[in-house]
Amino acid sequence: MNIEVQTNIEDVIAAIAAPPEIYLAQARTRLDSLTKPLGSLGRLEDLAAQWFAIRQGNLTAPVSKSVYVFAADHGITAEGVSAYPAKVTQQMVLNFLSGGAAINVLARLNRVAMNVVDVGVDGDLFGYAGLLDGKVRRGSRNMLREPAMSPEEVAAALAVGLTMAEAAHTKGTNLVAVGEMGIGNTTAASVMTAALTGMPAALVTGKGAGLDSEGYLRKCQIVEAVVKNHFVQPAGPRKILRCAGGLEIAAMTGMILGAARRQMAIVMDGFISTAAAAIACGLAPAVRPYLFAGHQSQEPGHRILLAHLEMEPILDLQMRLGEGSGAVLAMPVLEGAMRLYQEMATFASAGISGATA
Amino acid sequence: MNIEVQTNIEDVIAAIAAPPEIYLAQARTRLDSLTKPLGSLGRLEDLAAQWFAIRQGNLTAPVSKSVYVFAADHGITAEGVSAYPAKVTQQMVLNFLSGGAAINVLARLNRVAMNVVDVGVDGDLFGYAGLLDGKVRRGSRNMLREPAMSPEEVAAALAVGLTMAEAAHTKGTNLVAVGEMGIGNTTAASVMTAALTGMPAALVTGKGAGLDSEGYLRKCQIVEAVVKNHFVQPAGPRKILRCAGGLEIAAMTGMILGAARRQMAIVMDGFISTAAAAIACGLAPAVRPYLFAGHQSQEPGHRILLAHLEMEPILDLQMRLGEGSGAVLAMPVLEGAMRLYQEMATFASAGISGATA
Repeated sequence: MNIEVQTNIEDVIAAIAAPPEIYLAQARTRLDSLTKPLGSLGRLEDLAAQWFAIRQGNLTAPVSKSVYVFAADHGITAEGVSAYPAKVTQQMVLNFLSGGAAINVLARLNRVAMNVVDVGVDGDLFGYAGLLDGKVRRGSRNMLREPAMSPEEVAAALAVGLTMAEAAHTKGTNLVAVGEMGIGNTTAASVMTAALTGMPAALVTGKGAGLDSEGYLRKCQIVEAVVKNHFVQPAGPRKILRCAGGLEIAAMTGMILGAARRQMAIVMDGFISTAAAAIACGLAPAVRPYLFAGHQSQEPGHRILLAHLEMEPILDLQMRLGEGSGAVLAMPVLEGAMRLYQEMATFASAGISGATA
Repeated sequence: MNIEVQTNIEDVIAAIAAPPEIYLAQARTRLDSLTKPLGSLGRLEDLAAQWFAIRQGNLTAPVSKSVYVFAADHGITAEGVSAYPAKVTQQMVLNFLSGGAAINVLARLNRVAMNVVDVGVDGDLFGYAGLLDGKVRRGSRNMLREPAMSPEEVAAALAVGLTMAEAAHTKGTNLVAVGEMGIGNTTAASVMTAALTGMPAALVTGKGAGLDSEGYLRKCQIVEAVVKNHFVQPAGPRKILRCAGGLEIAAMTGMILGAARRQMAIVMDGFISTAAAAIACGLAPAVRPYLFAGHQSQEPGHRILLAHLEMEPILDLQMRLGEGSGAVLAMPVLEGAMRLYQEMATFASAGISGATA
């Protein structure tokens, strides 16, 4: 790994502070003064208030957007849980680097800086221009047989994410999307969701990138078996991450913790990044007010995880791609909410009559 | 009215042709070749295919976006159906012209050209820079007592919209949002929805800009009474528009018809613009494939109208503002869908393995 680790996870967790509640009330007062019927911007008003609170009332810095896509392979793919072969992880990383993937297109359109991080791809990617090398191991271990990561591997992968958060902060990023690529990682997220919420395997498992019915049933059985192997007793977020999380999921967890510590607004993508966010919230509940749910994925476990976090998605477009695509697609809505907050006239300034009721 | 009427409504209706079905199949073939699991872009794939069909396979021209906001007053406000006084229509038009309304902010952010058209504001707005003067009458008639418009007024208002569509076409616009401002116009849209779908007043009537419970009950009674006065027998779209539509709704209908005739993609906003679109589809069913539903409004009648048109909204953010705000907010999603279609690599070009299943 050529990225210098700059931060200790325990220090970061201790340093995360939720924005003071007073900013939400201040935001509501301003929103109610804008030239629109009270509450008529709906969810946009909640998004704007949350953004105002994250920025602690200081909106002078322009919005600076980045997406970080963390890639890794998963030992569990040996059990036949995915419709695509594991080598697609590496192939898609190269696609990210050459600009041909969905996330590249959406990042270009919405002016979001694109970052690709190898945390654990099972292949030699060293030296590719534009790739951030944070490789911890060539893929996680097969979680059906042993914990997916050793404690040292978890720590190293978390540190990759923390380092990325520090780099983003240094560049002035204040709105960050967290995405991933990893064949097999919906299986990891399903196990994590079952462990976090106690829901049965059948309710947290989906068809991933496109399993047929037979493949889906096999995946459900694997998820159930992994849960049984590691989580007979209820487990905390650290153990859940170590036993079931992929290397990219641990790195995303680190990125989310580090971004919250630096008071960035964080947009989750789908099932996998929400699993990372749920672990981050488990480690540090003060992360929660920095999070936005970019979209509702079609993976059934994602709905359960969002309910677990008590969050509503911004978009619901039946997507199930990952890569950060749903998060980056939601960014213009979030930016719209903020700009409305900042730029709309007030009833007083525009000389407009209020409600008569 | 200083806008020269260039088009006859019957000629326009006759000239509207749905895009050939073949383009949808062509689009599906390309979508399935892109570097993503089959169908994993969800609704974005439907949006891209529809856009490709509207453009009849020719995507060389860049996306050029405009929003048209049509403003008019409503005679029915004499019955106390709105939380805001009627003079707010004119005040908000001035707010549009000075750039302080929600639609201004969203149009600037998303690079959408903003057009404000006075079709029937009850006030003297002549000579304001930037306002397109299409005034037919100072407000519609009180539809509780008589049809909201005379046949000549309907024709004149439709012509305003047609003229705007021609102007947009001449400027190279290929993606147009249709919005409105008009105190009292949710009452008009509720009556139109009841007449179009046969649904009872209580199900098509909402709280508009913010009625209290008492005001809401009064509005329901007015809607029911108007429906009884004009629509004892099932009525066609022309009669529904004349008896219950406001001048801005008729102009929006004309704009939608004219835009479909010129093969523009049309993004509806909320309840009012969808009522206009439903009338346009009633007059010319070939309009339907040119329409996108920008968002789901909180007005209960909007859900019914979208079901009537068999359309799914792009966004659902509990908004109820109008002005075209939901339509313009949805434009980046639509543009994202198109750009993904155009710019993503294919499995073959990127050398990526397909599904093994």
